[in-house]
Amino acid sequence: MLDLDRIRAETPATSRRAYLHNAGAALTPAPIVAAMKDYLDLEAEIGGYAAATREAPRLDGVYASVARLLNAAPAEIALVENATVAWQMAFYGLAQSFKAGDRILTAEAEYGANYVAFLQIAKRSGVVIDVVPSDASGALDVAALERMIDNRVKLIAVTWVPTNGGLANPAAAIGRITRTHNIPYLLDACQAVGQMPVDVQALGCDMLSATGRKFLRGSRGSGFLYIRRAFMETFEPPMLDHFAAEWVARDRYELRPDARRFENWENNYAARLGLGLAVDYALAIGLETIERRCRLLSTRLRDGLQAIPHVTVRDLGPNPSAIVSFTHDKVEATDIVKQAAANNIIIGASDPASTRIDAERRRLPMLVRASPHYYNTEAEVDRLVELVAAVR
Amino acid sequence: MLDLDRIRAETPATSRRAYLHNAGAALTPAPIVAAMKDYLDLEAEIGGYAAATREAPRLDGVYASVARLLNAAPAEIALVENATVAWQMAFYGLAQSFKAGDRILTAEAEYGANYVAFLQIAKRSGVVIDVVPSDASGALDVAALERMIDNRVKLIAVTWVPTNGGLANPAAAIGRITRTHNIPYLLDACQAVGQMPVDVQALGCDMLSATGRKFLRGSRGSGFLYIRRAFMETFEPPMLDHFAAEWVARDRYELRPDARRFENWENNYAARLGLGLAVDYALAIGLETIERRCRLLSTRLRDGLQAIPHVTVRDLGPNPSAIVSFTHDKVEATDIVKQAAANNIIIGASDPASTRIDAERRRLPMLVRASPHYYNTEAEVDRLVELVAAVR
Repeated sequence: MLDLDRIRAETPATSRRAYLHNAGAALTPAPIVAAMKDYLDLEAEIGGYAAATREAPRLDGVYASVARLLNAAPAEIALVENATVAWQMAFYGLAQSFKAGDRILTAEAEYGANYVAFLQIAKRSGVVIDVVPSDASGALDVAALERMIDNRVKLIAVTWVPTNGGLANPAAAIGRITRTHNIPYLLDACQAVGQMPVDVQALGCDMLSATGRKFLRGSRGSGFLYIRRAFMETFEPPMLDHFAAEWVARDRYELRPDARRFENWENNYAARLGLGLAVDYALAIGLETIERRCRLLSTRLRDGLQAIPHVTVRDLGPNPSAIVSFTHDKVEATDIVKQAAANNIIIGASDPASTRIDAERRRLPMLVRASPHYYNTEAEVDRLVELVAAVR
Repeated sequence: MLDLDRIRAETPATSRRAYLHNAGAALTPAPIVAAMKDYLDLEAEIGGYAAATREAPRLDGVYASVARLLNAAPAEIALVENATVAWQMAFYGLAQSFKAGDRILTAEAEYGANYVAFLQIAKRSGVVIDVVPSDASGALDVAALERMIDNRVKLIAVTWVPTNGGLANPAAAIGRITRTHNIPYLLDACQAVGQMPVDVQALGCDMLSATGRKFLRGSRGSGFLYIRRAFMETFEPPMLDHFAAEWVARDRYELRPDARRFENWENNYAARLGLGLAVDYALAIGLETIERRCRLLSTRLRDGLQAIPHVTVRDLGPNPSAIVSFTHDKVEATDIVKQAAANNIIIGASDPASTRIDAERRRLPMLVRASPHYYNTEAEVDRLVELVAAVR
């Protein structure tokens, strides 16, 4: 059971504002903030290296925590600065072997960060980017994906939960296809981790990238890459230092045997600790419990918004996640965000340029993006609905 | 003038231990630790995005601070996770155009992180790594460097102050040669920034990488890249996201006009703030003042160590910096580090594998590495000398 009183007491800002911006950066529980601050104090007292040595058991434990979150092994986890770095280390590593005419398959609502990287590699190597169409629900069309596969497809890279709305792409169904055809599968789970169970075995992905700061409620400047153990040996990380690969002889290096070959030596350990504690916090509540409550609150929000004249909910897919996107015929998205903030309701906006292909296809303007989490209340969701009903 | 009483009061741990490990990670001034902790509190109170917006003036000011430190323009600065990432973003970007037979020139005491990257690119592209010999003093031989130049040399990449001792390579003299021959010059200033003036105009480098945590006394997980404005346009960063390059049309991106094209969107803002405040702190004292005191204390330490039987100071170069490296005929380096720690004297050790070519040439074992900073006292240095004289 979810002890909402305790959880909200451990997130003191919830008593002062309705924080519905968890797809941006969630509020971090106070015990985790305190632990990060204590870590900074320890560094200032005994020095950064001694602090990392003294706290090594807890810091090493972050790998085990993330592995448990994903149903992976600790040796399959790299802890990096953010989700983009995690994704890039996987993508640009694989891209070293891409040849002109090779194909990357991706989804319509692919995240802008990833798409810019596709374009850079297309320019560099001549690889072709093919966008898989969506089905009637707005989710990636799995049958269409399968029809598009040929022996030139070298990567399927998909954002599971896009940044611009509730859509949850059929990540596990995609995985069944990529495994059947033995095609590398890179899953961007940035908006999925922390709001729902994420099981890399069930998903069938070879690589998965995610951030600490969103639904996981962890630190800014934290993220991780999962890479399947057997898959790790098929390519080198795009960049290496002497932590990722030992300098064993003048003209030779040896890659680390584990996923930390995608890291480099120096890290922000306070942020890393915060990530691990946030994962533990989510696991203690239970991801099924979290997902249930996220869906309950986001459904309540969607239902409320849909009843307001001039408001259009823009979420796609058969079973949308905790990101609620909408527009108002008479009021711009950024105005709604501002009016909400003036009433201590914190939400965000999603720019068409962050998901350009989907935005162009659906002719989307800037969207309002509200993203409740398990720590929110029904009353907070209702406050937002009332505010939107009253905006002008 | 250096107000040592105030400085030590602002670094409370100095009253409890002799901290001589500044080439590892220095002690961060308490006001800066407090500012980072306040920033984490702000994020927990209003959310990570609102915090970055509210503190935007201070966060933007970090670029100006680093630019002032280096005598560069703010648009020539990228703030990244650490010095290795800074160096890699420059090196791997340039390396995209390397062809088989192209040459990289580097120094004997080049840092292991960089050398592993050279080896990866050598394997990938067939580029040749040529090590410039040292002169009689142990510094990079500038005349030899100039003789080695031909039209296949595509990069000169040198660590200014190597990790394994006091050597300060002739960075500005190298810059005069690279400018004459119009060869890209990447300077690793990781151990130089914060202990001496660093002027990129005087150095003549095209790119310079550095960290926050060492002599700058900033946060772990912070670093920066300087890249000369005109040079920036000659190549693309090795990896891009939609912050580094705007996704302007379905099949096209546009690189940012400034050095932030080497960054990505998500950052640890507390660490970034800590970096900026640490730079301001150093500038307020004055880098000439800092250098003078660093040299005074490291000379005192070297002189004291040299008088001890069985101790050999291993520092190279005509005018060594604040890193003091030494060995003891009878006691292993790691034992000395442990015995010092047991006496509240914090020093480090340098592994031969971190500077393999220099270590093999000089047949170096593990070295003791002691690195005083301006906040240390003569008495602390003397305590270390006494301890080393007594080790067994």
